[in-house]
Amino acid sequence: MSFELSLNTGTTPNLNLQQAVEAAARAGLSHIGPWRHLLEQAGGAQRAATIIKEGGLQASTLCRGGFLTATSSQAQQEALDSNRQAIEEAATIGANNLIMVVGGLPSAAHLLGGAGDRQDKDIVGARDRVARALDQLVPLAIDHGVCLVLEPLHPMYAADRAVLSTLGQALDMATAYPAEAVGVVVDTFHVFWDPQLQQQIQRAGHERRLASYQICDFNLPIASNALQSRGMMGDGHVDFSSISRWVAQTGYRGPVEVEIFNDEINAQDADLTLNTMSERFASLVLPHLEQAAGIQSASAIN
Amino acid sequence: MSFELSLNTGTTPNLNLQQAVEAAARAGLSHIGPWRHLLEQAGGAQRAATIIKEGGLQASTLCRGGFLTATSSQAQQEALDSNRQAIEEAATIGANNLIMVVGGLPSAAHLLGGAGDRQDKDIVGARDRVARALDQLVPLAIDHGVCLVLEPLHPMYAADRAVLSTLGQALDMATAYPAEAVGVVVDTFHVFWDPQLQQQIQRAGHERRLASYQICDFNLPIASNALQSRGMMGDGHVDFSSISRWVAQTGYRGPVEVEIFNDEINAQDADLTLNTMSERFASLVLPHLEQAAGIQSASAIN
Repeated sequence: MSFELSLNTGTTPNLNLQQAVEAAARAGLSHIGPWRHLLEQAGGAQRAATIIKEGGLQASTLCRGGFLTATSSQAQQEALDSNRQAIEEAATIGANNLIMVVGGLPSAAHLLGGAGDRQDKDIVGARDRVARALDQLVPLAIDHGVCLVLEPLHPMYAADRAVLSTLGQALDMATAYPAEAVGVVVDTFHVFWDPQLQQQIQRAGHERRLASYQICDFNLPIASNALQSRGMMGDGHVDFSSISRWVAQTGYRGPVEVEIFNDEINAQDADLTLNTMSERFASLVLPHLEQAAGIQSASAIN
Repeated sequence: MSFELSLNTGTTPNLNLQQAVEAAARAGLSHIGPWRHLLEQAGGAQRAATIIKEGGLQASTLCRGGFLTATSSQAQQEALDSNRQAIEEAATIGANNLIMVVGGLPSAAHLLGGAGDRQDKDIVGARDRVARALDQLVPLAIDHGVCLVLEPLHPMYAADRAVLSTLGQALDMATAYPAEAVGVVVDTFHVFWDPQLQQQIQRAGHERRLASYQICDFNLPIASNALQSRGMMGDGHVDFSSISRWVAQTGYRGPVEVEIFNDEINAQDADLTLNTMSERFASLVLPHLEQAAGIQSASAIN
């Protein structure tokens, strides 16, 4: 069945992998997108793979690789090593997709605990370093059957987290590599504002690089910790009907992953979160995906 | 003389127009970009024009028109009326440029005190309403010799303030109108992250629509009131050398306006703010503008 719902474990940060798998299964989900620290906590990728499989789920993505913008050769080497390990972990848990948050400016690295260089604000140079790092990682990704999925982040994170800000830019960067090795993700929070969104989603489809569809809402006012501004679908300002239609029109039929960083939602009972997720997906997202895909659905378009 | 510094009065919110003009003149500035409420407070645009002229300054811009995305015909009419008045005010104070913040989604209008429609999240439709409103306003702007200067805002404000998020999108929207009637502004805070920035600044130059260069920094972490995240040049993550070079390479030789919304800077002594502004402009911005313009300068490139 198409368009199955997936729980990104960032949505339920108080659960370990076992608990997250069980909660997702209780809610009737088929997929899970774990963050790497849950694999480590579970005793490694092999053990994590067993937990996911025994829970009756499949891994939709592994979050995350990236942070490839360091200037020092030592920091760059450490980042490459970490990404190589992430590729192997993704393969081990059966996730075809390693989500890549490419990293920010050296001037902002200290904000995330890195060394960086507070004077280096050269965003063009930082993007070049990402491209050079991808050159290093793509052969290993191909060997492992893992797609490096470039995630354009909302421009409010351009300085500290990702110098990749639009889907078009991600596709431009991906062009140098085979489509099975480097893809892109549409995350509604990050891209809903983009005037080129429809056109670039179409392009991602034509270029066979649309690897993942992640959903959550864009809440206002922006949370005091800007990372936590992601909202439950329907609570914010994202037009899920249009974006979901555009995604399905490309032929995308993969899992739809819900990733919500939000203080209130993250603190509440996980079953409540999963049930709300499922209801909002069924009412606000799935009908538009199915209509665009020409699938007869039990759910009506609102 | 080229590249003269201008004080946008948003930087000194505790000063009335008279005080702002005097402070700018004391700091050796030649231009001021007032907000409309200061004109009203001063007794109207004619009186404001006198204050600016007697203070020995010129108006670089008037801030601001826009907010053209309302759905109800009454709210749309009120917005058009307000913009018509703003055009007349801009002409009266001798500002060639009326800065246009085009407005956000109906779903977010209540956040700024408007009526709106909490279910209407159609960003494509909102952009269409902006274009239709421009059709109405352009003839009056031409009559008054005022340029409607479209301001792409940072995408973090796409939902509540401006469905215009990139310079490329602003230029696309401007295409339907004469260059003297509809221009664009490069505001470093709003566009520094844009992967197409260099190319779109060049395009703005070719199309003769680069009407204003506004500067301030992008601070992190984002302020709890996201509007107040604008920083003094050098305090954040904007690469002023590259952007200033690109702007000057288009042939732009107009005023450079400093607009900083920042709780700490807005609360401090205005003379201190103006002196810091002038120093940072002289060290971080002007040398790159002058180098790209081929102007011999007393200041060295750092």
